[in-house]
Amino acid sequence: MGASGEQIQLGEAEVERLVAGLRRILAADELLLGREEVTPYECDGLTAYRQQPLAVALPAREEQVVEILRLCHGLGVPVVARGAGTGLSGGAMPVAQGIVLSLAKFMRILDIDPLARTARVQPGVRNLAISEAVAPYGFYYAPDPSSQIACTLGGNVAENSGGVHCLKYGLTVHNVLGLRVALVDGTVVEIGGTAPDSPGYDLLALMIGSEGMLGVVLEATVRLTPKPQLARVAMASFDDVVKAGNAVAEIIAAGIIPAGLEMMDKPATRAVEDFVHAGYDLEAEAILLAEADGTPEEVAEEMAAICAVLEKSGASSIRVSRDEAERLLFWAGRKAAFPAVGRITPDYLCMDGTIPRKHLAHVLTRIAELSREYGLRCANVFHAGDGNLHPLIMFDANRPGEIERATEYGGRILELSVEVGGTITGEHGVGIEKIVQMCAQFSPEELAAFRAVKAAFDPPGLLNPGKAVPTPRRCSEYRLTGSARQG
Amino acid sequence: MGASGEQIQLGEAEVERLVAGLRRILAADELLLGREEVTPYECDGLTAYRQQPLAVALPAREEQVVEILRLCHGLGVPVVARGAGTGLSGGAMPVAQGIVLSLAKFMRILDIDPLARTARVQPGVRNLAISEAVAPYGFYYAPDPSSQIACTLGGNVAENSGGVHCLKYGLTVHNVLGLRVALVDGTVVEIGGTAPDSPGYDLLALMIGSEGMLGVVLEATVRLTPKPQLARVAMASFDDVVKAGNAVAEIIAAGIIPAGLEMMDKPATRAVEDFVHAGYDLEAEAILLAEADGTPEEVAEEMAAICAVLEKSGASSIRVSRDEAERLLFWAGRKAAFPAVGRITPDYLCMDGTIPRKHLAHVLTRIAELSREYGLRCANVFHAGDGNLHPLIMFDANRPGEIERATEYGGRILELSVEVGGTITGEHGVGIEKIVQMCAQFSPEELAAFRAVKAAFDPPGLLNPGKAVPTPRRCSEYRLTGSARQG
Repeated sequence: MGASGEQIQLGEAEVERLVAGLRRILAADELLLGREEVTPYECDGLTAYRQQPLAVALPAREEQVVEILRLCHGLGVPVVARGAGTGLSGGAMPVAQGIVLSLAKFMRILDIDPLARTARVQPGVRNLAISEAVAPYGFYYAPDPSSQIACTLGGNVAENSGGVHCLKYGLTVHNVLGLRVALVDGTVVEIGGTAPDSPGYDLLALMIGSEGMLGVVLEATVRLTPKPQLARVAMASFDDVVKAGNAVAEIIAAGIIPAGLEMMDKPATRAVEDFVHAGYDLEAEAILLAEADGTPEEVAEEMAAICAVLEKSGASSIRVSRDEAERLLFWAGRKAAFPAVGRITPDYLCMDGTIPRKHLAHVLTRIAELSREYGLRCANVFHAGDGNLHPLIMFDANRPGEIERATEYGGRILELSVEVGGTITGEHGVGIEKIVQMCAQFSPEELAAFRAVKAAFDPPGLLNPGKAVPTPRRCSEYRLTGSARQG
Repeated sequence: MGASGEQIQLGEAEVERLVAGLRRILAADELLLGREEVTPYECDGLTAYRQQPLAVALPAREEQVVEILRLCHGLGVPVVARGAGTGLSGGAMPVAQGIVLSLAKFMRILDIDPLARTARVQPGVRNLAISEAVAPYGFYYAPDPSSQIACTLGGNVAENSGGVHCLKYGLTVHNVLGLRVALVDGTVVEIGGTAPDSPGYDLLALMIGSEGMLGVVLEATVRLTPKPQLARVAMASFDDVVKAGNAVAEIIAAGIIPAGLEMMDKPATRAVEDFVHAGYDLEAEAILLAEADGTPEEVAEEMAAICAVLEKSGASSIRVSRDEAERLLFWAGRKAAFPAVGRITPDYLCMDGTIPRKHLAHVLTRIAELSREYGLRCANVFHAGDGNLHPLIMFDANRPGEIERATEYGGRILELSVEVGGTITGEHGVGIEKIVQMCAQFSPEELAAFRAVKAAFDPPGLLNPGKAVPTPRRCSEYRLTGSARQG
């Protein structure tokens, strides 16, 4: 299955050759070597885990990326590709004996084709920058992770990022049509394209969401979506999270696919309201946000259908945005939920389990029970339409034992997701954060299939080693300690 | 990269052990061995290529499939899985030294979940049978290949099948949520699921469209789509195929995504009209069919927008279906295009190239030029919205040299598709038909990536060998003869 780059130990001579090689490829200001210089790169958005790399490379041209990969491949040095570092699962955390390959300088939009409705962009282009660039043509790029102002398309591809609108418009995998990718040895391949299907195996889908473990994105061709003429959002209050959870399932079962369908519980709305003053109902146990977009007639009809289901499901009040400013205000709270919770607690863990919608009410009840059991507060923010949960477990890392309790609580939520037929991650990736839960999600045979794919693309195991796919040994350990859990 | 099952030669003793093993696993009426018994399985819809297999297995239970795979894996016997045999690229053509594994008896719908909008089905379930079974809940299964009355879901998965509605509702890969798959050694894995994203590499997308070369589908969970309240189709005539091609690009560029957007040229409409009497305009050089579906308001608005673009693009006449009967009649012609052409020519080749929509007019002109050059008639039927061409090259296999001329003409069309940035297949798969054009489509490095994936799943190369991914030797030969072509 190929060696695991995780265990690589480089000798002094190899490190010297690596540095000499990088100096040949990169200008002085494109190479960071000193302890202080590399510190900003020692973690991504999952700040609880940190690791200094040997070096950080900041190339500006594709040929440099290819040469760096060739150099590292020849020397057996692990390479961790990095976009904006906004990932939440530690996917861009460095490896001690490896380098970080930053794609931050690849920020050019290479081509916009309004007739084909596509754009070709470099991997360091920010998600929102695409929508800004194509706005004059009446288009936008649909996937909209909350970090879209900062996160890059290369990172979006690595994590198969979603966002509040992915219920209707799809994840990154549904909006990226083609990729130009450098493989571990520097070979450059083009995969996918603008045709609806591509002959041969679907390497495009395989690459998207592969967390930097199969190749390094050099360019991406993305699908552009026409901006809807109008969008309105309904905000409904519920006196009970179970009712709100059931309302979500009922909306989908009624054949409505809202442009966004989001849910927040009381701890979340309280944290948010103090921060952005979006006008959220602070007495509600849960609020739902459901958006309709399209032509004015479509919006009117869909909004009427949404409100009918919300009323039938027992909403205690419903407000529909009257204009674009109010719509953006309703969403502003949801989009700021993470930083808002960050203000009221020293630390928090954001989980990312996904469950079948019909189990929403049950899972919410269990999360509340576990909150009491672990003595830790939890604010719940969901991409409810997708069944994608983001419980934010609040803790104080300075109090002895709290981080361990929070981690265990989070693990229980993920295992609960798997139990009801869901998965451990919806859109944030596995990274290092959820790597042991992969052992709960998949059978040994299924994990072996993942490892075989990894070995097919990266035989020496040098691309982002130690992430996403656990070793068999790691799963054996997990199964032993997992079953020994108290409770 | 693993041995290629194509070259496998079995000794007499191995064949005896194979037959003995199959007899242990299968009842007498589940195993076909004699020359006459296996003859119906010697080709699929691509009848120009035929091959007798050693045996045909017709198991009825999953355990039998697993045991057959174990047996063949142990003996090194190639296995070609087969659904209804309606494929058009020879994907289910047997291998001389291998067996055919028919999944025809796996025709049960296992579960329908209206709340989650999913159904779990066996691989031998017919495409249309799913829509029929879920109709009482107001749903249907969206991908609708023209063969949907006969083709099976397992075959749809193997070929990533589309249909006239896939422009709006996606291909098989967008409508299958999870698979239960037997790997080459009989190991059973579950991939994908009902969550929007799945952790780890996207093995689901990898398996869909892999033409039976990575695994055998045991069960599929499919997405169900709410039946639209209303659908209407506009039929527009054009006095020039270039104008019709441009109209297609203009409709898409206007931000309209019709439920179907199909085009036929004069030879195609003439053949069809004689056959189904759909009321097609026989004087038109090309006709376009554009469907709008949704609520009555949505349909009215979208149909007005479609008609406006059609008029601006120079349509000489436009008719909109007045009722459901007329809508089905308009479509009946398109759906019967292949058999209709079959009536007016002894033989035909159906090509399946896909091109960027903006090149439609140019490619149509070149196809007509090539028709004169090769002295062969060609009727054109397109999934125009997708840029997916189906030129039907007419010939008479009994006339010396005609099949070779037709094949070369077809090859030129596929290479033309690649030249303008398209692909050699949109929805029919590569199979054996287009395997050499894969050498034109992909670089040696890209083909090496395909072979590495194949080797990861099927190290001995026993699953459907010789299809879809050409060997390096085959590409060397192609490049030599391809460059020596006259013209």
